[in-house]
Amino acid sequence: MSYEELQSRFKRIGDLNHALAMLSWDEAAMMPTGGGAIRAESMATLSGLVHDLVGADETGELAEAALAEDLDDWQTANVELIQRDWQKARALPRDLVVALSTAATSCQQVWRPARPENDWAAVSNPLETVLALTRDKAQALADALGCDPYDALLDGYQPGLTKAQVDPLFAQLRDVLPALIDKALDQQDEPLPITDSFGVQRQEALGKTLMAKVGFDFERGLLGVSHHPFCGGEPDDTRITTRYNEADFLESLFAVLHETGHALYQQGLPKAWRGQPVGDANGMALHESQSLLMEMQVCRGAGFLDFAAPVVQQSLLGAPTDAPEWQPDNLLKLAKRVRRGYIRVDSDELTYPLHVILRYELETALLDGSLTIADIPDAWHDKMSRYLGLSTAGNFRDGCMQDTHWFMGLIGYFPCYTLGAVIAAQLFATIRERVVGIDEAIRHGEFDVLVDWLRANIHGRGRLMPAMDLIAEVTGEPLGSDAFLDHLKARYLDAA
Amino acid sequence: MSYEELQSRFKRIGDLNHALAMLSWDEAAMMPTGGGAIRAESMATLSGLVHDLVGADETGELAEAALAEDLDDWQTANVELIQRDWQKARALPRDLVVALSTAATSCQQVWRPARPENDWAAVSNPLETVLALTRDKAQALADALGCDPYDALLDGYQPGLTKAQVDPLFAQLRDVLPALIDKALDQQDEPLPITDSFGVQRQEALGKTLMAKVGFDFERGLLGVSHHPFCGGEPDDTRITTRYNEADFLESLFAVLHETGHALYQQGLPKAWRGQPVGDANGMALHESQSLLMEMQVCRGAGFLDFAAPVVQQSLLGAPTDAPEWQPDNLLKLAKRVRRGYIRVDSDELTYPLHVILRYELETALLDGSLTIADIPDAWHDKMSRYLGLSTAGNFRDGCMQDTHWFMGLIGYFPCYTLGAVIAAQLFATIRERVVGIDEAIRHGEFDVLVDWLRANIHGRGRLMPAMDLIAEVTGEPLGSDAFLDHLKARYLDAA
Repeated sequence: MSYEELQSRFKRIGDLNHALAMLSWDEAAMMPTGGGAIRAESMATLSGLVHDLVGADETGELAEAALAEDLDDWQTANVELIQRDWQKARALPRDLVVALSTAATSCQQVWRPARPENDWAAVSNPLETVLALTRDKAQALADALGCDPYDALLDGYQPGLTKAQVDPLFAQLRDVLPALIDKALDQQDEPLPITDSFGVQRQEALGKTLMAKVGFDFERGLLGVSHHPFCGGEPDDTRITTRYNEADFLESLFAVLHETGHALYQQGLPKAWRGQPVGDANGMALHESQSLLMEMQVCRGAGFLDFAAPVVQQSLLGAPTDAPEWQPDNLLKLAKRVRRGYIRVDSDELTYPLHVILRYELETALLDGSLTIADIPDAWHDKMSRYLGLSTAGNFRDGCMQDTHWFMGLIGYFPCYTLGAVIAAQLFATIRERVVGIDEAIRHGEFDVLVDWLRANIHGRGRLMPAMDLIAEVTGEPLGSDAFLDHLKARYLDAA
Repeated sequence: MSYEELQSRFKRIGDLNHALAMLSWDEAAMMPTGGGAIRAESMATLSGLVHDLVGADETGELAEAALAEDLDDWQTANVELIQRDWQKARALPRDLVVALSTAATSCQQVWRPARPENDWAAVSNPLETVLALTRDKAQALADALGCDPYDALLDGYQPGLTKAQVDPLFAQLRDVLPALIDKALDQQDEPLPITDSFGVQRQEALGKTLMAKVGFDFERGLLGVSHHPFCGGEPDDTRITTRYNEADFLESLFAVLHETGHALYQQGLPKAWRGQPVGDANGMALHESQSLLMEMQVCRGAGFLDFAAPVVQQSLLGAPTDAPEWQPDNLLKLAKRVRRGYIRVDSDELTYPLHVILRYELETALLDGSLTIADIPDAWHDKMSRYLGLSTAGNFRDGCMQDTHWFMGLIGYFPCYTLGAVIAAQLFATIRERVVGIDEAIRHGEFDVLVDWLRANIHGRGRLMPAMDLIAEVTGEPLGSDAFLDHLKARYLDAA
């Protein structure tokens, strides 16, 4: 049967993707610098093999033939996803793929030292090249898929997502958040600072304890260290990383819990569909929703911190303490502190969406040509001033040069972060409605019910249907920003 | 030009081999158990791709055409090595490769729990299957290469090596060593025991200090942990591992120094030939000679321990000490202690060759059919009694079931260990003859001269010529066991 043949072809592709996932984790977490050149070459060769296998004539022929066979829902979805991948692989001329990858690598290499030097002039030409090639890519994909070029890029990170879905959500957030931030800052109680510093070993032990508690399976994964925390690997070998700041254990701890949310998703993907597209994670926005559901909805909440405070005391101090800065109410204040800042990755739940919306507005304009590379610094400064009241005039380092994304050709990725937050809120509101006693369970350190619900409704369903359809089905309504705004108001205004 | 095309084909093969090397290191040093199944599948898919690319018609055609082109010595050697690999890849039917790999994996899985249970009955049938398929493999290779079947297997580990070269070397050792061991044990001074125990962090720091001192390049490699110490990775990303025994720091330290010898070889391979067969390490015996030259010839010697004793004291105790057990003369006694034992991997320099010779005699007989699987336990007991005066009657666990090699189809590998020791001695004798002041340099912790010599004469020459020719050229005479026996007599008899 064609279906079986197609599936075994994708099993082989899955084997190559496994190698790529592991090499990529290792590159960030283990590799000595000298290994960089051969690693890049090896990964390019593997990616090329994957691209060739996915885009081969045979793949398209087998997929077409398979659809005429007697398939169940999962098999049908699998073939349709394969057809889509095949279409996209063929839409991109190999020369363009190579040119973009080369330009992105060299632009990255310019950007890395230029950022600390605040040297915008150095990056603007390489960025121009990357942008031009990214536009070519978007156009080629748009022609093949019959859609708008920006949508074609979005589709690469969150399949099926469109600008038409993002616009109204982001418009509402952009309208409401600035005033909400003002109010929250007015009402905010300053936490007592924790000034102790803690070594890596203690922090790591605490992280692992809480990871295991919330459901991370250490038989199928591990915790490592890298410059930026991330979740990599694959379902049966899920590898997360964090970095340790001895002066601020909460930074590393919440990073671990965030990545654990990603990891639970990955470890919960449907066992029967390993290596097949239908068994993969269902897009970056949904992936981010799982990390933010864990970090923001659960772990930065009062209930979780009631449970976690004694565990934290025991792990870091060696014994319980009555000191007020270590009590749940103060940990909560530390966990939900709002501050206007320049840097997206350091920002809190409340200001984060404005960082993303700024980037979304600029990158859509860059793609349709209404904004040029030369316009970026002023446009950035203008939006930062309006959304967060901060000037980035002349400060490229903490402004338009802070993120690596555009410099490596990632346009269409940023919206996923905030969509993830929005999805997380809508999902968690549904869980609290439907799962009786969920708040109490979390307060007692019991996470099975939560994780089981996520497995049944999200994780275990892989890519059986587009993420937006899945969310609508699971929560009973299309994705909207109401639940997210309700959550923000409840957490940042009512508590004051 | 055909040569260029062939070289770029092998660059791609090198990229896949890079992935395999890294996945294999990760499997031993990092991977959680749950990742085992997909890892095995991924590595099998990659190995299959390598096998197909090496053995393709095009490879043979390009190689033949390339030899008619104007090539330098390195290019010619590269093409000849490629031709040989091509010949061997085509000699083995794909069915046989898969059958052997499957049988070896399942035999391994039976062996692992059966060994602690002393359950020879459980492994004898699976081993029968592995042996039968290994004999088929040897015969297929022998037919293609026009050689003896055992030589065809040897060639897989040390290209070009033959039983005719091994036999006289081993015969001499087998004749001389038993009496030499008796004498050494008679004369041996008991060392003072070191009873302190040291945590992993201290031991690791000490290991890294001495690695860096003898020349390991940490820009292009790292030290990890695994159940059995090994050296993996590739020249620009060389990864060694050790295991830590808190009660015996010397065990881990000498393991680190042994693997560092392997690593120096790997890091010193010719930069211009990365990924090409001619740029690879020149066989397992030569590889082992580099680890044993470092561990046995250098680091277990009096000069090195004079230099290392204060470093060890400082790293482990935090300060110098006058305690007699920590002085160089006592560390030397600990480093060269001889004991007759059952277990090859735990045995010392003097008894080790007899463990290898026993295996060599049995495996050659297994391959030519003069010994059956059922005969192994008695034959093992018989030889252990004769060579080392130890009975293994009924003790399979510490006898014929102790090593993993045969159970995974590795026949022809064992001789490399002792050939490595023999080569190391002959090379080091040459170095001491030619490099003025080498003993003093080592005693002062200066290793540049040693490493430079090895780079120029061995490491940097890759596979430009067969290892046995290289040794003869470098040392001025064909490989013999005289230098090794002289070294043993000097270290274990004269000192008494």
